Amino acid sequence: MSLVAIDWGTSSLRGALLDADGRVVDERSAARGILSVPAGEFGAVFDTLFGDWMRGPGQPRCLISGMAGSKQGWVEAPYGHCPAGLADIAAQTLAVDGDRIAMVPGLSHEQDGVPDVMRGEEVQIFGAMALTGRRDGLFVLPGTHNKWARVADGRVTGFRTFMTGEFYALLGTHSILSRTIDTQAPLNEAAFMLGVAQAGNNEGLLHNAFGARTLSLFGRMGAADLASYLSGVLIGEELRTQSLHAKGEVVLIGAPALTQRYALALQASGVASRTLGAEATWAGLHALAQTLYPS
Amino acid sequence: MSLVAIDWGTSSLRGALLDADGRVVDERSAARGILSVPAGEFGAVFDTLFGDWMRGPGQPRCLISGMAGSKQGWVEAPYGHCPAGLADIAAQTLAVDGDRIAMVPGLSHEQDGVPDVMRGEEVQIFGAMALTGRRDGLFVLPGTHNKWARVADGRVTGFRTFMTGEFYALLGTHSILSRTIDTQAPLNEAAFMLGVAQAGNNEGLLHNAFGARTLSLFGRMGAADLASYLSGVLIGEELRTQSLHAKGEVVLIGAPALTQRYALALQASGVASRTLGAEATWAGLHALAQTLYPS
Repeated sequence: MSLVAIDWGTSSLRGALLDADGRVVDERSAARGILSVPAGEFGAVFDTLFGDWMRGPGQPRCLISGMAGSKQGWVEAPYGHCPAGLADIAAQTLAVDGDRIAMVPGLSHEQDGVPDVMRGEEVQIFGAMALTGRRDGLFVLPGTHNKWARVADGRVTGFRTFMTGEFYALLGTHSILSRTIDTQAPLNEAAFMLGVAQAGNNEGLLHNAFGARTLSLFGRMGAADLASYLSGVLIGEELRTQSLHAKGEVVLIGAPALTQRYALALQASGVASRTLGAEATWAGLHALAQTLYPS
Repeated sequence: MSLVAIDWGTSSLRGALLDADGRVVDERSAARGILSVPAGEFGAVFDTLFGDWMRGPGQPRCLISGMAGSKQGWVEAPYGHCPAGLADIAAQTLAVDGDRIAMVPGLSHEQDGVPDVMRGEEVQIFGAMALTGRRDGLFVLPGTHNKWARVADGRVTGFRTFMTGEFYALLGTHSILSRTIDTQAPLNEAAFMLGVAQAGNNEGLLHNAFGARTLSLFGRMGAADLASYLSGVLIGEELRTQSLHAKGEVVLIGAPALTQRYALALQASGVASRTLGAEATWAGLHALAQTLYPS
């Protein structure tokens, strides 16, 4: 059986046609994140973009993960709770528009009375488990809202969100730092690692971010290097608390421009890592389909 | 001798005419922060606003503190270095436009290879020392870029800047949180204290700020209370590292709407505080004038 695997996020949409073994037969993406789709038009957008795949040989099924399952999406698939394994997620998928399309629920996890959530990353984590054979450890998914997830015996036992990508954009665009930082500059590893080290002083981001202002004021660092420094301060702030939970190699899942930075910072803390990209999403949806539709 | 005391900041300008005992005879403010004054026109703006005071009886002198002494200001008064007492600051004031007007330098302090700076707050700290008789302890100046300064034997021995006010504005205006937070709402002490307590989990601001998103997502807190909660998360993040340095009563200097929050958060940590407002600036400039111009 073929699978139409969809990762439908807030600002973008990606799909892959997978064969029975999970191999990618075809791939597509479109700038049709859920924010761009009016309520009631999700079915039409889906049909325009993926209708030909769905009408293909063998009546493929479709699994959709990501924000399309949120309140603002196509249909709301309520969050599952940690700890959650693949079977738990499979049991909570929600049929959409007949029984050939199903929405994957996100995960929530409560800590000290405050909930945390993910939608789509859970699929990437299960995909990474399938691809690496790892069933324990720390899985990190850099992005606008980074996730640090702990996995034990194949189940996600808990996770934390960090608004690192969003803070970097806010500071680089709207703050006083934006005047003296060139966020388009390529990574300078030395400046980045200085920022990571600075975060280790435990004075917190509110203080350490100001260092990117004063280093400019005193002419110690130029606009290009300051972007790397600020990125290091932010990622170092995550590592300060999260890298303690690493037991063995950390699995990084995401775009290379981001995972590279986490790998560097982790390495400096003596933590090894390995990196996966978009293939984790397709592997996760394939694994979920195998659980849902055993042949 | 009378003193024309001026606090000339980035976005605003305040002045007071003080008598020989430091009492306020007259007070003025104008929306003429340094950002609104073209280079070369500082003298004219000063004369328009304060010329009548300067031409008053007894040929008053004038002291100016704040960003007017920065590179973008009237004349650049290079930063003094910590530790610094009133006499050190006095020795570094810079004559402007003849010898009756002097610019007060700011202070810098270097920690782990990263400089920190203040301009204007040093005068408030010396003023607070004069008003309270305190010559040791922790002095906190809430604002866009908060300062936590340590004082020993009447000298500022070191300080840290925290971008708390700016982060609150960034998050409340430009982040994903802005959609579900009402930053115009009055303080809700209970929600604020929940945020302060949350910051104590040491997971860092990047994670705890996301709690303001999820508490809304799960309908646990409304937009008005979330503003107080986020404020508590931010201020709690400062206290997490800084309140350890409190020995005895902390001196808070600033606008009541802000100092009130710090007083509440400190109290919850078992740290007492007392609060001063704008009078600290005038007392500081008066003390500096007495050092500079002994009669």
